Amino acid sequence: MEKTIKVFAPATVSNVGCGFDTLGFALNEPGDIVILKKNNLNKIKVTKITGDKGAISKKMEENTASMAVKHLLSKLNDSIGIDIEIRKKMPLSSGLGSSAASAVAAVFAANKLLNNPFSKNELLEFALLGEKVASKAIHADNVAPCLFGGFILVRDYNPADIVELNYPRNMYCTVLYPQLKINTSEARKLIKKNLQLTKARRHFGNIGALVAGLNNSDYELIGKSIVDEISEPFRSKLIPGYFDIKNAALTAGAIACNISGSGPSIFAFSKNQKEANKIGAEMMLALKKKNIQGKVYISKINPNGPKVIG
Amino acid sequence: MEKTIKVFAPATVSNVGCGFDTLGFALNEPGDIVILKKNNLNKIKVTKITGDKGAISKKMEENTASMAVKHLLSKLNDSIGIDIEIRKKMPLSSGLGSSAASAVAAVFAANKLLNNPFSKNELLEFALLGEKVASKAIHADNVAPCLFGGFILVRDYNPADIVELNYPRNMYCTVLYPQLKINTSEARKLIKKNLQLTKARRHFGNIGALVAGLNNSDYELIGKSIVDEISEPFRSKLIPGYFDIKNAALTAGAIACNISGSGPSIFAFSKNQKEANKIGAEMMLALKKKNIQGKVYISKINPNGPKVIG
Repeated sequence: MEKTIKVFAPATVSNVGCGFDTLGFALNEPGDIVILKKNNLNKIKVTKITGDKGAISKKMEENTASMAVKHLLSKLNDSIGIDIEIRKKMPLSSGLGSSAASAVAAVFAANKLLNNPFSKNELLEFALLGEKVASKAIHADNVAPCLFGGFILVRDYNPADIVELNYPRNMYCTVLYPQLKINTSEARKLIKKNLQLTKARRHFGNIGALVAGLNNSDYELIGKSIVDEISEPFRSKLIPGYFDIKNAALTAGAIACNISGSGPSIFAFSKNQKEANKIGAEMMLALKKKNIQGKVYISKINPNGPKVIG
Repeated sequence: MEKTIKVFAPATVSNVGCGFDTLGFALNEPGDIVILKKNNLNKIKVTKITGDKGAISKKMEENTASMAVKHLLSKLNDSIGIDIEIRKKMPLSSGLGSSAASAVAAVFAANKLLNNPFSKNELLEFALLGEKVASKAIHADNVAPCLFGGFILVRDYNPADIVELNYPRNMYCTVLYPQLKINTSEARKLIKKNLQLTKARRHFGNIGALVAGLNNSDYELIGKSIVDEISEPFRSKLIPGYFDIKNAALTAGAIACNISGSGPSIFAFSKNQKEANKIGAEMMLALKKKNIQGKVYISKINPNGPKVIG
């Protein structure tokens, strides 16, 4: 049995326009790295956090990674001790599933360390319980695509039931991260608890159409179905210049553009890397006009999820 | 140019559980027959209605078939006169898209009579405007599958934008029609105008999952995603013994069972004709226990929509 393992888990884009709390996909980069090492203390310990660690707690009960590992070990009834080092390689509170990535990396690593006692579906439950520490609720639309890779639909939450969707393997995603912090649970409070049936119906049509469009690599259908009447109208207000950035992406040839998760990151789909680069440059220009710094990530959809590295 | 044409247009199942006002599919039977004949009066006339005609009006402005043809002719700026004979071959107010079938058969026939000046997308608009006479609103989830055949998703209503879904070609549909009349616009009034976001989210997950399941012929996924939290809880109250009938279908092996449109018809999916027959027999038994007469239709999904006959 190995004693140390190092795992990368990817950033994820959730909501994807029409799919509030339902759809998400994994990116190739950025992502978090977690290093797990067995200790002789019979305790789970967060030993070190580096990178964009913000106010992430090292306390076992307050950290998504250690809590995810705790749920995993509880299931085994194992009193093994594990040291966890977290290298935050992506911005916190960016709408890119940062807390999910740490939780997923940790359970994936712990499972490897213990010679794979659990299936991915079981790891999903542990990671969800871990991630709950950060988002105060179970939201599988980051955790599931991070763990499974690809484009994921969360059919149900009790228990989590996910569907791995078909999608065009050559589609690119440009992500602009504007250097603003948006707290996930605060951003959720902007969302109304009730929805007009007429609005819900348009989301029904768009979600079904997006799944069909992804399946058939129908870029036109993908484009027109990425419409968000639930969160974009409110969350866009927290991102200065959001609609200018979105227009810049669409003018530069993006198939679709919308807010990633609860923001402030913004994603745009395109058909090839050249377009993806151009879209990134134009989005960045629009952001700079608001005197906000940012960072662009260009990535295909990541089909794999977490991986052992180093 | 021909002077007379006879067209069959199929019954349709709409809603399909999770897809309120969004999903629908066509059956092989039952359906309506419409006969169009040119006249020299420069007028559209409903000459005859036979079959289960209920209170269907022969007045041009009150009949779905003639109004659909009127919209078609207006677009052509043509003063041609047409006699319309309608043979209602399916029960009225049954939740099987009876008014849609007459409207679709009529515009399909008129287009043929005039040597096909219009595309199916254009015919859809005319049929929708015709069908509005019956349902008091534009609801494409019967009209579109009736016209296009197959399994249809209505992405948008303004203007109508439909997506032809992939689906398993060997799946069977059993429809039980209990001999009760339910008025579509009355049944709509039972539906609440607002939806809790949590409930809407479950529909998001189920619609996306149903489209994915249909695409991959994943019967398990199709089965578990056909869940209706919007209309079934209310409309089921209008169908005596509904949950007994549904249980009978599921116990007999149905993949899923739910209300067709606004009811009272009930549909059930299965994997082959033998199961479809058994399901029909068991549903009928459960209905008879409530001392209600009924009729069972067994059909694959009809891939074609309307057709010229005779």
